[in-house]
Amino acid sequence: MKYLDTIVALATPPGSGAIAVVRLSGPEAISLAHAVLHLVSGKAFDQQPSHTVHLADLIDGQRMIDQVLATIFVGPKSYTGDDVVELSCHGSVFIQQAIIQLFIDRGARMANPGEFTLRAFLHGKMDLSQAEAVADLIASDSAAAHQLALNQMRGGFSQAIALLREELMHFASMIELELDFAEEDVEFANRAAFLDLVQRITAEVKRLIDSFALGQVLKEGVPVALVGPPNAGKSTLLNALLNDDRAIVSAIAGTTRDTIEDELRLGGVLFRLIDTAGLRETRDLVEGLGIEKTYQKMAQARVVVHLFDGAGLYQATQDWSVVVQTIDNLKAKYPKQHILAVVNKGDLLSEAARRSLQVDCPDAIALCAKDQSGVETLKTALTDLIDTGVLQGDASLVSNGRHYHALIQALEALDKVQEGMDAQISGDLLSIDLRMALHALGEITGAITTDDLLGHIFANFCIGK
Amino acid sequence: MKYLDTIVALATPPGSGAIAVVRLSGPEAISLAHAVLHLVSGKAFDQQPSHTVHLADLIDGQRMIDQVLATIFVGPKSYTGDDVVELSCHGSVFIQQAIIQLFIDRGARMANPGEFTLRAFLHGKMDLSQAEAVADLIASDSAAAHQLALNQMRGGFSQAIALLREELMHFASMIELELDFAEEDVEFANRAAFLDLVQRITAEVKRLIDSFALGQVLKEGVPVALVGPPNAGKSTLLNALLNDDRAIVSAIAGTTRDTIEDELRLGGVLFRLIDTAGLRETRDLVEGLGIEKTYQKMAQARVVVHLFDGAGLYQATQDWSVVVQTIDNLKAKYPKQHILAVVNKGDLLSEAARRSLQVDCPDAIALCAKDQSGVETLKTALTDLIDTGVLQGDASLVSNGRHYHALIQALEALDKVQEGMDAQISGDLLSIDLRMALHALGEITGAITTDDLLGHIFANFCIGK
Repeated sequence: MKYLDTIVALATPPGSGAIAVVRLSGPEAISLAHAVLHLVSGKAFDQQPSHTVHLADLIDGQRMIDQVLATIFVGPKSYTGDDVVELSCHGSVFIQQAIIQLFIDRGARMANPGEFTLRAFLHGKMDLSQAEAVADLIASDSAAAHQLALNQMRGGFSQAIALLREELMHFASMIELELDFAEEDVEFANRAAFLDLVQRITAEVKRLIDSFALGQVLKEGVPVALVGPPNAGKSTLLNALLNDDRAIVSAIAGTTRDTIEDELRLGGVLFRLIDTAGLRETRDLVEGLGIEKTYQKMAQARVVVHLFDGAGLYQATQDWSVVVQTIDNLKAKYPKQHILAVVNKGDLLSEAARRSLQVDCPDAIALCAKDQSGVETLKTALTDLIDTGVLQGDASLVSNGRHYHALIQALEALDKVQEGMDAQISGDLLSIDLRMALHALGEITGAITTDDLLGHIFANFCIGK
Repeated sequence: MKYLDTIVALATPPGSGAIAVVRLSGPEAISLAHAVLHLVSGKAFDQQPSHTVHLADLIDGQRMIDQVLATIFVGPKSYTGDDVVELSCHGSVFIQQAIIQLFIDRGARMANPGEFTLRAFLHGKMDLSQAEAVADLIASDSAAAHQLALNQMRGGFSQAIALLREELMHFASMIELELDFAEEDVEFANRAAFLDLVQRITAEVKRLIDSFALGQVLKEGVPVALVGPPNAGKSTLLNALLNDDRAIVSAIAGTTRDTIEDELRLGGVLFRLIDTAGLRETRDLVEGLGIEKTYQKMAQARVVVHLFDGAGLYQATQDWSVVVQTIDNLKAKYPKQHILAVVNKGDLLSEAARRSLQVDCPDAIALCAKDQSGVETLKTALTDLIDTGVLQGDASLVSNGRHYHALIQALEALDKVQEGMDAQISGDLLSIDLRMALHALGEITGAITTDDLLGHIFANFCIGK
């Protein structure tokens, strides 16, 4: 499959910088570039071997636009599979625009969002889930999300799915063949081997479906509700948690970041802190709060951290019953959430109070947000809740909602296939469910696509990718 | 001159995009990159020829960071003159940071602003004025500013200055030699040839000094004060002027722009519109305005456009005396400014009123801002005021304040040299002024620098350049 038109776009982030890269892809990429590039070496650009870089004056008629580094990629050995030229120019917005405009004037077309990657997919350079991972990779803002996207881009589960699907397709065609010989009552498809395959695929699909919950929080960030009365030291704790992260970010100059006010990176995982301001005195207990919004936010969270003013509480009651009761109530009310009890102002606790806390609430984390002692323990507790170990190994996680829904559809169809086989239904009924399963699995890898689907996926890309 | 340390920085604009480029420069650039790059071809990165590009996995120990395109530049054939490696990675901020951090952990140092270009200067890849032009080029936001910076980067006047300075240096050394033989009263330096050279240099320095006024407005934008009473249609005219510009800018997707609210690009020149809201009825005449601020802004402008409510004025007075008198007053008050009279609501003028305007104020521009008729005439009048023709030819303009001040110093010293020669003063006095001139000229090209000067110049660069 070859494209007749040549596309152009800025590949680097918008704005000005030391350099910017303008990318051309298509049958005219090299000739369009050749027409305006005057190599300092005096050689002809279009005669240069693939994957070489050349210092050149970029001249439009009499008008010199910039001195650039021009890289030539001869298709199909390129990102898109087309001929590709990348021009590394001085990074002023004016120059970027002038170069793009120059190529548009000469017949190139402004690329649509994701069109370079779409071409890579259509040229078979990557499957659809790999193409989707490119967008995830660019959007990734934590080590975990990055690793997830990278796994997926390098094949991840989609290659395994593709192989299993191919085996399934083989059986499906056998069964369809049987239909052609229906009157002769032959069985081309070995039912035992077929059942074994369906069970293997079902197991893999189930594993992938189960991985989605984790995959999604790793990609989007783990929602954490930090609750507790104002005097418990919530904002001090927040600062203690965030400062460290900020320091790491700002150590690398030359990069600007969106606000990280409420985002926390721990052990490579992004935690999104959900603001739950408005809790009254903890002594009122959770039941007494009466604040519907806070309830909702806690329900949306994956982790609820309840902060107590340890010293104040113990002084008032001489025991930890409030903490025990509050945490028990939270656990009953939010069975799906991880609940962490954090006792602040630990530095003001007596030795007896500490010992009593260890006995009454062995899981409670005592810390002092002000001098940061014990904050590491809370961080460890948070990261321990998220098993990132899976990212190191070969096991892949599903983090994409589209894949998740396709897997659910595949599982439903596979279950029907298995039920049908158990009930020894006829081949023609079996093949309907088989086709459904093949279709759902094919949508993940892009073996089966529609223009709508592709349009939807690539519209979410940035231009230039 | 070789550097012992290897620097690293993001070269592309901050933020996320399809791709980003991380640049390494220094003796360890290739070996640092080699240690973490696993070429898909299986080859060794550090054995690859200069100016070649390689698809590679970037792996830190067990952790894969990204799949990148790695370009190798073997010094001195590189931007800085060092060995240079450019890594084109997926453009997430996370990946950019991870790659930079990886190289810092392995011994590279975060580059200072402009440090890549500083190295290029110190390695003799460009002179100081060329290095300064790199920053101007990146900051350029109009065709004129861009062309100015490009001329300067490609040598511009600094090469001519360098040649003249060398000739002058030759004479200076001859005169110093004479001092060694002072008792013998010899003349090594041919005084006639010397005088001729001084005059040639003086003429060139004067020409460059004169070019600064134009060079600076082309670089910074031409300040235009748009004055007139509110009902004259100032904001409608502003929109008519700006809309066109906005359309051009937004036609090129994928680039974001700072606000262009008050900036206007005409014929490649940037015009900066100075807001002068607050003028009362024009009939009060300029003398009656009494608004000090507006006076100041008009004084700062290079062009003053005075907009009149044509139909209203003519209806009230049946002649154009108010326009004539206002413009005459403005011209008297602001002799250095170009004054343009613009008569709006021209569509409502009678034929007689039009004819009368042509007789009384032949230079006035009649237009209708609402339906945009005649707006082109105003645009042409504005661009005609700025002679951009000089940018096409070989003549170079000075646009840098530092160069301007050095040229002024050089001119003062050259004048003294000439005076001294006319007065036939002794060689030792002559040589003091000569050294002054040589020093001032040398500061432009960077033949003479101090750490302070270099620090000041390159601190204004962006990181990564």
